[in-house]
Amino acid sequence: MEKALAKHYEWRGKIEIGLRSPLDNKDDLSLAYTPGVALPCMEIHKDPSKSFELTRRWNTIAVITDGTAVLGLGDIGPLAAMPVMEGKAALFKKFGDVDAIPLCVGSKDPDEIVNAIALFEGSFGGINLEDISAPRCFEIERKLKERLNIPVFHDDQHGTAIVALAAVNNVLRLTGKQPEKIKVVVNGAGAAGTAITNLLTKAGFADIIVCDRSGTIYRGKEGLTPAHTVLAEATNPHIIKGDLAEAMKGADIFIGVSGPNCVTADMVRSMAEKSAVFAMANPTPEIMPDLAKEAGAYIVGTGRSDFPNQINNVLAFPGIFRGVLDARAPEITDEMNIAAAKAIADYITDEALSPECIIPSALDKKVTDAVATAVKKV
Amino acid sequence: MEKALAKHYEWRGKIEIGLRSPLDNKDDLSLAYTPGVALPCMEIHKDPSKSFELTRRWNTIAVITDGTAVLGLGDIGPLAAMPVMEGKAALFKKFGDVDAIPLCVGSKDPDEIVNAIALFEGSFGGINLEDISAPRCFEIERKLKERLNIPVFHDDQHGTAIVALAAVNNVLRLTGKQPEKIKVVVNGAGAAGTAITNLLTKAGFADIIVCDRSGTIYRGKEGLTPAHTVLAEATNPHIIKGDLAEAMKGADIFIGVSGPNCVTADMVRSMAEKSAVFAMANPTPEIMPDLAKEAGAYIVGTGRSDFPNQINNVLAFPGIFRGVLDARAPEITDEMNIAAAKAIADYITDEALSPECIIPSALDKKVTDAVATAVKKV
Repeated sequence: MEKALAKHYEWRGKIEIGLRSPLDNKDDLSLAYTPGVALPCMEIHKDPSKSFELTRRWNTIAVITDGTAVLGLGDIGPLAAMPVMEGKAALFKKFGDVDAIPLCVGSKDPDEIVNAIALFEGSFGGINLEDISAPRCFEIERKLKERLNIPVFHDDQHGTAIVALAAVNNVLRLTGKQPEKIKVVVNGAGAAGTAITNLLTKAGFADIIVCDRSGTIYRGKEGLTPAHTVLAEATNPHIIKGDLAEAMKGADIFIGVSGPNCVTADMVRSMAEKSAVFAMANPTPEIMPDLAKEAGAYIVGTGRSDFPNQINNVLAFPGIFRGVLDARAPEITDEMNIAAAKAIADYITDEALSPECIIPSALDKKVTDAVATAVKKV
Repeated sequence: MEKALAKHYEWRGKIEIGLRSPLDNKDDLSLAYTPGVALPCMEIHKDPSKSFELTRRWNTIAVITDGTAVLGLGDIGPLAAMPVMEGKAALFKKFGDVDAIPLCVGSKDPDEIVNAIALFEGSFGGINLEDISAPRCFEIERKLKERLNIPVFHDDQHGTAIVALAAVNNVLRLTGKQPEKIKVVVNGAGAAGTAITNLLTKAGFADIIVCDRSGTIYRGKEGLTPAHTVLAEATNPHIIKGDLAEAMKGADIFIGVSGPNCVTADMVRSMAEKSAVFAMANPTPEIMPDLAKEAGAYIVGTGRSDFPNQINNVLAFPGIFRGVLDARAPEITDEMNIAAAKAIADYITDEALSPECIIPSALDKKVTDAVATAVKKV
């Protein structure tokens, strides 16, 4: 991977500005700049909604981080997070034809971050939050959604939740199991785990147990954070107490958004028949796929491109924003996220569907179109 | 000019994001995004200055307005200012190969604006302020310069001052007059007029009279704003009182950054021999060039492309930022601005220099190179 560093030195930035209007002679200049530019200005002054027609706002979003939860690297700061934001912006363009501006904000104070973003709202058609630590990310997203009239999306939460739900949907297709009857274990109670749990709940999954390092989360457990108290209320209906091994007994689906190697073969053996294990920790999964398979898992997925069933956000975020930008939707709803998950799952035909193929390739741009169309319909 | 509006509807934005790194297969993705991107992230985490090598920061600036003083249209608001900001960003790319991100900020409070910009400092290598009303623009620029470690430039002030000084420099070359001996009248005491006056003073011009609607500005005049009190201290050494006509008697150079048709033929007739009239108000100059010529002006310039001697900021701002970005200078100094003005003036050879040719064409990209080289040297 030293090559990645050399490439970054060579690229000197993964995105740049491109021109859409000619500027080759005096006539071009007088149309795109003074004096001609006064006309679109006054048109927007009369009708502010025209900013979505006469400027690039209709297709432009901000990709914003404070650098507090970057990849698996943690709180490395806003400057160090920028290569990820640029990479994200590049993916937005490549897969969704969305113009994304990478921005890093030099504060960890949620209100300061919210205020700064809100002041620049008029420059963008949407806000994609990225790599912000929990529980701050919940507060920042909630306050932005309250204040802004453009869609706000925290990809680490909702992007991950959408692709996880898509994978789970195809587990149901393959196994014939019913959402209200099966047991799902989510390991990791941060941004991704919380969002996955919420979206699965919205989609009708009735028995979800969330675990973190302290074991299962349940109503009345001592020392719960405010965010975990909310989670405890909505999950674990049978009040299962204990560690991850306890939670996984009889589970149909395991979803890991936690850390490396925390799932053992014995835990997988204790799961229900036709179990599914999604070990999404990067770069080292909760359990290696071959080990999970040997232990009896029927379906295995990871976050990695070098194993089958890569559960990758890039299947979701370009299409989500392509859809809401095209529809000029003021927000992104759970219904849109569920529709996006269904579109991703249904992209796999009945003929193609198998334990080794439950989710489309991250490089298939047509998935973006399917997601965008589904989101627009909602 | 209805065509300009139609073109803006057709373009749907004058800039967009372009890709610099390939994203065509899994290998590309693993280099530009996860897992490879972790390496440049950690490199910047160890040494934050690497953000100028491993991301696009070295070539990226923000073009920021609050929409309070847009072109000659006034306070039309941030959204309505966006077509100008996009046009500016397009000019930055075309003439300076600078990646400029247009941002409009939804506040008129200087401290709120400064805070919001400061929080996003790490995303940019420089800040270009644009179309912000005086005297707020002075406070915003000063506070940003104090807080930020990247160059801050208010183009309406300093860009205009640089091209005005370039034009004035070539008046001296053509007429053999000396800066310390001639009388200059600046009409307009807002952002541009103040910056022109300050830069001319720094460049050695000793007798400058600034006028606004209330007439000449002089020490002890009643009702001066704080900004105008500072101007009064530094100018008008002979304490000339009265209106613009009074100020222009015997003046060698008139610089108008005010409004249409406020200069009469009689005023031009009252000027010194070999006088120069720069009527830069847009779109209608302070006096039409043919009228000024008939009244005896030796050299006439305007802001318009359809008359000789167009005094246009595009001669300055792309080269200024190209120069400071390449030099990674932490600020833009008066010395750089004076050097930029000299580079623009000297671009006109002795053979080419004439009353009808004192300033290069706004479309000549080689001027940018000359300005950038001069700025880098400083």
